Amino acid sequence: MNPLPPVELKAKLARIAQPWTPRVIAELNDYQVKLVKLQGEFVWHTHDDTDELFLVIDGEMEIAFRDGAVRIRPGELYVVPRGREHITRSAGGCEAMIIEPRGVRNTGNAGGALTAPQDAWI
Amino acid sequence: MNPLPPVELKAKLARIAQPWTPRVIAELNDYQVKLVKLQGEFVWHTHDDTDELFLVIDGEMEIAFRDGAVRIRPGELYVVPRGREHITRSAGGCEAMIIEPRGVRNTGNAGGALTAPQDAWI
Repeated sequence: MNPLPPVELKAKLARIAQPWTPRVIAELNDYQVKLVKLQGEFVWHTHDDTDELFLVIDGEMEIAFRDGAVRIRPGELYVVPRGREHITRSAGGCEAMIIEPRGVRNTGNAGGALTAPQDAWI
Repeated sequence: MNPLPPVELKAKLARIAQPWTPRVIAELNDYQVKLVKLQGEFVWHTHDDTDELFLVIDGEMEIAFRDGAVRIRPGELYVVPRGREHITRSAGGCEAMIIEPRGVRNTGNAGGALTAPQDAWI
């Protein structure tokens, strides 16, 4: 069989209309690579069982913890350690890649209205 | 404790002098995020037990399989499936991010002179 084509991040991002709706673009063993648009503020939450990787593609985002915050710009990545309560925000809008194990709920222990469906591929 | 700063990919890449020497920049659970410079041709090899993710940051690379090849450009990613023999190449030079489980040997089942040390952080 011929190899699959590469995944173009910007082309995939162009197909995401709404903020806070992560979409799966690839799998790596039992991990999923997702793209998400951020606009405004998410919810405070914790992933007790897993770290979570963010890589900013365009725009800027902030990851705030209870004791400080980091600003992440294009070409920068950040790993939120498991068990660390955090919230993501972007006043001006942001496009980011997320990598985490399959099955992780985006709102972690918080749940609520911003909880996204699993396995939504684009 | 205050949060760690984000990891700037280009700043880290500037500290890598030689091609085919992957350097660890972050960990995500039992996975490692690495940066590597490619120049010329690597070796044919297989990772029997794991997929391997490539994201091109700058330049272009080719991943060739025995039955075809893909060209990967900046902002594009590719997951090489486990068990699939492949070789990476870049005639003009390339900077890429790799994500794979901790402990994966870069030359897979092939070994040889291009085998890189584990856990070399920058």
